[in-house]
Parts: sequence; structure tokens; C-alpha cells
Amino acid sequence: MKFLRTIKAEDMEDIATGGAVLGTGGGGDPYIGKLMAQQAIKRYGPVNIIDVDELADDALVVPVAMMGAPTVMTEKLPQGEELINAFRQLEQLLGKKIDAVLCGEAGGVNSTTPFVVAAMTGLPLVDGDGMGRAYPELQMVSFSMHGVSATPMVLCDDKGNSLVLDTVSNAWTERLARAATVEMGGSALLAFYSMSGAVAKKAIIRGTLTLCAEIGETLRAAKSEHRDPVAAIVDKLGAQQIFHGRIKDIDRRTVGGFARGTAKFEGVEEWRGHSFQLDFQNEFLVATRDDEILVTTPDLITVLEAESGMPVTTDALRYGLRLVALALPCNPQWQSDAGIALVGPRYFGYPVDYKSMF
Amino acid sequence: MKFLRTIKAEDMEDIATGGAVLGTGGGGDPYIGKLMAQQAIKRYGPVNIIDVDELADDALVVPVAMMGAPTVMTEKLPQGEELINAFRQLEQLLGKKIDAVLCGEAGGVNSTTPFVVAAMTGLPLVDGDGMGRAYPELQMVSFSMHGVSATPMVLCDDKGNSLVLDTVSNAWTERLARAATVEMGGSALLAFYSMSGAVAKKAIIRGTLTLCAEIGETLRAAKSEHRDPVAAIVDKLGAQQIFHGRIKDIDRRTVGGFARGTAKFEGVEEWRGHSFQLDFQNEFLVATRDDEILVTTPDLITVLEAESGMPVTTDALRYGLRLVALALPCNPQWQSDAGIALVGPRYFGYPVDYKSMF
Repeated sequence: MKFLRTIKAEDMEDIATGGAVLGTGGGGDPYIGKLMAQQAIKRYGPVNIIDVDELADDALVVPVAMMGAPTVMTEKLPQGEELINAFRQLEQLLGKKIDAVLCGEAGGVNSTTPFVVAAMTGLPLVDGDGMGRAYPELQMVSFSMHGVSATPMVLCDDKGNSLVLDTVSNAWTERLARAATVEMGGSALLAFYSMSGAVAKKAIIRGTLTLCAEIGETLRAAKSEHRDPVAAIVDKLGAQQIFHGRIKDIDRRTVGGFARGTAKFEGVEEWRGHSFQLDFQNEFLVATRDDEILVTTPDLITVLEAESGMPVTTDALRYGLRLVALALPCNPQWQSDAGIALVGPRYFGYPVDYKSMF
Repeated sequence: MKFLRTIKAEDMEDIATGGAVLGTGGGGDPYIGKLMAQQAIKRYGPVNIIDVDELADDALVVPVAMMGAPTVMTEKLPQGEELINAFRQLEQLLGKKIDAVLCGEAGGVNSTTPFVVAAMTGLPLVDGDGMGRAYPELQMVSFSMHGVSATPMVLCDDKGNSLVLDTVSNAWTERLARAATVEMGGSALLAFYSMSGAVAKKAIIRGTLTLCAEIGETLRAAKSEHRDPVAAIVDKLGAQQIFHGRIKDIDRRTVGGFARGTAKFEGVEEWRGHSFQLDFQNEFLVATRDDEILVTTPDLITVLEAESGMPVTTDALRYGLRLVALALPCNPQWQSDAGIALVGPRYFGYPVDYKSMF
């Protein structure tokens, strides 16, 4: 089996940074995710990344993830044991050895949790995920569009409770897993969406981990060479810079297990005199400039510290922070009718149609 | 194997009535429960009741029940298929043939749902339950006091979703199952508390189904012989009549999957000029007369129509109804420290100690 990369503890820095850029404000604290993965790699050894085409068609691939509001995850540092519990329980339930681990989403914690399982099991990690970004609900994956069932799914908490779900739709999996996660204290660990190699080759969004690593490398190189890190990211990703400003108002609340809220900005430099607003539900979903909706999900809205270019998560938003907002094109799978039904602005309650700005 | 009784469809009438008397206002609509059991018995054959001592020590006994607010259960008539799904899934999970079915509680629906499973499977039904009455939360069973785990538990809904729970305590099972039940629309079907024959002989409250049948027979006989049905029940159960009055105010709300509320009465006949109040959470938990707490859980508070002696559930309480309230002594298991911790008035938030009025 050919490995694209072998990830050592120090390589997690770039991947966590890149995941947080693609994570569009969600997916949890990248620092926590990085620490978890680094600890696991130091203890169990490096993680090998493979291209999905390396998998046999009858191979068994299983994504793992954390569920919950990022604000809660940060307070309840998850243990590798819980992740591996969910993974091993699902393997036992399926009655077949799992051949590779997969990411559910790109985002602070969830682009790194699969590294924990890969390190602990010695299994390769597939270069890809189910979103090419982060999203707040578990049915919001390209896997759903390819008919992959989220169940059987195993959900574990930090107390030793576990659930096996078997549902009639991935939307029902989300509802029941969300209710359990809230009851469990706001975060839980999942193994789900088991699929064959043949299905994975069609159903995943490819190359996400390589892209995460490259984003991290780009930022690091720009900083060490004293170039503008924001400009380097814009170049690397074909992004558009849509605002530069300071947070003047931030409103957040945890609703039904989600971190929802709104951040309002006042412009600086070229955007002085302009207003800007970001609406989020774990992730940034809608960007409004001068009272006009500019970018919506599924296109990516990501926010960087103006000086360092480091990505900022929704729960790190604070009054007075000076930030740059970027829009990035989404993976074309999301632009299909099925994709828009799953993650378009109307699903989240915004009365607008998706229109790509790219 | 010696059968105590063989229950045909027409025998369910008495059992459902008796279950509703012991159900202390909860456990769902006895009419619905009776219909479900009668349909199953007509289709699959009669149900044999056995004494728990008939079971081998290594026999496998599994209780089945519905979970949810009775007000919801009444609107969503459960199908036998969902109950048998939960039962069969648990059997498969345990990897051992189940030898007998057991009631979780005595109450409108839950003293009859096990008849559905017994009829469909041809398995005997054990004469007993886990409460000797009804209670709103699933850890509130004598089984808990004997160290029986509620999990592995299978929970099914009417849509085809199912959960397998494996928890660190029966209180956690309640929390997670309740959250799932609420999300599933307010009612779900359970198979849980699997136990050996040896454990069942110690852990169950014995004779509940026989008592249900006898209560129903007592009421029916009194009516056909034009005797006072309320007096007949008082004699049969060693009950105390604690009030006779009309409902003048009823306040109910569904909170966290429970039907909670308060019913206020004004006295008639010998109780004219006196006031009376019942507090309930699915079941009647506290009776207050003339502003003094008179009866609390775990003693049973049951309410009968003054004329017919028929039991009245909490969700059938209506302005103007003329009712008689009775207090019945609870099973002695509930009077232990462990029993009071599980179901005493303080658990439900009433700032009083349990004091038996018997």
C-alpha cells in the first residue's frame, strides 16, 4: 500500500491549522484537536495517509467524529479511549475487520480525531472527508448523497454510556444522536457511515487532509518569510477577501446542542464605513455586507486573524478582534440539488437561494 | 410447567381495569392497552400466566414496556410489531433464547403490552412486575434495588428507528431513553432489564397480574350485584377512602416527556367544605387534604369514578368529574431506604418525608 504522507506529531500543527481554515469557524478548538492527535501519535506511532484508490473495493472504511457544541467540547477534553470504544464497538457489530479510518468533516477537532483512532489502531487514514469543510449536523455529508447510511452507528460518552443507533434515515440519526449528546452533557464520540472501498471512492470528498496540510504549510511559510499570511491563503485557495474589520457585537447561545449566534463587524482600512455580519450555527453560514447577503452555505466563509492569518473559530470570537473574512468555493458536490437540499441556506432557515459568488 | 391462569381476549377486561387501579392514574389509557392485548390474543392465541417459581434458575426473563407521556401514547396507538421488534432485537443481542415475558409496571398500557409479546411469541408471562403500581421513570423498579441493569436495552419507535443502550446506571438509561423517546415523538417501545430466573425470584414484585385480575373481577361482580363498587375495592385492597369530591381546577403540561400537573377538588357529601389536591407526574404522587399532605409516593393514590368505581387516569381528569380518591399501601420493598431514595417524595421534589398512613 502506497502512503501519500506519514504524519508525525509535529506534522499535526499544519493539519490542525488547515482544518480550522476549512472548518469555517466550527468543528471545535483546533488546539484541542491537535493535542489529542499529537498525544496519540507520540504514544502509538505515526499515521499513514492513503489515497482512497489504494483501498480494495471490498475494504471496510469507517469515519469517526465528535458530536456536540464546540463550546462544550473545549471544556470536556475527550479521551482517546472513548473514540476507540465507539470504533471497536462498531467493528464488532459489523463482524468484519475495519481496513481504514476516514474523517467525517474538516474542522478543528474532527479533522484530527480520526488521527487518534488511526494512531491507536495502526490503520491507514484516507485522504478525504464527507464535507470538504465543517457542518453542524451529521447527515450533512457527501456520503448521504451517495446513499450511505449513518447507521449502524455507535455513540459513546465520557462516563461509559454507549448507544447503538439503527435509523430509517440519516436525518433521524442526527435527531436521535443530537438528543443523546445533549443529555450526555453536550459532547459524544461517534463511529458511523461504515462503507466499502468501492463506495468510498465515489462518496468521499477527496484530498481534504492533503489540502489541510498544504494550507498549514502555506501559512507557516508566509510567516517565516515575512509575507502577508492572509494574501498567501487567498492565493492558495482561490479565495475572495470579503471584509476586514473589528467585532463590535457578538451574540451567542447554545440551542439544542448547537452554538448559534451572530457577530457584527465594523470595517477598518479599505472597509472603513461599511458593516458586516456573520451568522453561525457551529459554522459560519451566512455573510452579510452593508445589509446585503454576500455569501451563503455551501460556499465556505472563513475568518482569519488579520495579523497572523490564523483561523478563528466561532467560539473564539470576541469584542474588538480585528479579523479578515474570506469566501471560498465549495466542493461541486454541494452545488447539486441534493447538496443544496442538505446544506443550502433555506435548510438553515435563511429565506434566500444559494448563489455562488465564484 | 404449571399455569396459574390462561388469559383469553375477554379476560383482558378485568386485567386492564385492575392494572388501571394499581396504575395510580398513570401507565396510559387502559382501553388502548386492553385493545392491543385483545387483538394480539385473538390473532395468536391465549397467554399463560406462570408463577415466577416455575422458572429454572438459569431461565432468561425479559420485561417489555412502553415509554412516554400517556397523553401521547393515546394519540399514537402502538403496533405489536414495534414491541416484538424490541424484544427480538434484545434476544438476538443477548444470544440466548428468552424463556418468559415480564411486566415492568402495573398500569393501563404497561400491564397489557407484555400480553401482546407473550401472545405473539407463545412465551409464558410471569405473574409479577417491577413496581406493584406505576411510576414515571424507568429506573423506578424493584429490579434496580436488586442490582439488575436496565441495559442492554432496545428501544424502538413506530417509524423503524431503534437504539441499543448500554449505560453505567439505570438512572442514565432513563435519561438517555427519555431524550430519545421525546425526539421520537413522545412514545417508544422497550425491552430491558433482562434477568435470570434466579434473580427474578428475588427481584420482582410477585402476584401483580393475579391481583389485577382479582380487582377487575371485584369491580365487575359488585356492579352486576348492584353493590357499591368503591366499597368493594376498599374491602378488597385494604384501602382508605381519603376524599370524595368534584374537580374544580385542573392544570396539566407535558414537561420533558412527562405529563405533569395538579388537580384541585371541592368536597361533596361527607367531605363538603373540605379541599383536596392531587399532584401528578404521569402518576398521582402526592395527595393534600385541607392543605395538609396526607399520602405520598410510594403509597398508592388511586382515583375512581364515584358511581361506577372505574379507575380514572391523570389524562382523563376533567373539570366537574365526581371522583373518589383512595390510598393503598405500597409493596414493603419500596419502604426500604433504597426504595425511598428511588421513589420517595423528595426524589420528585416534594420537601416532605414519606410516612405511611397504614
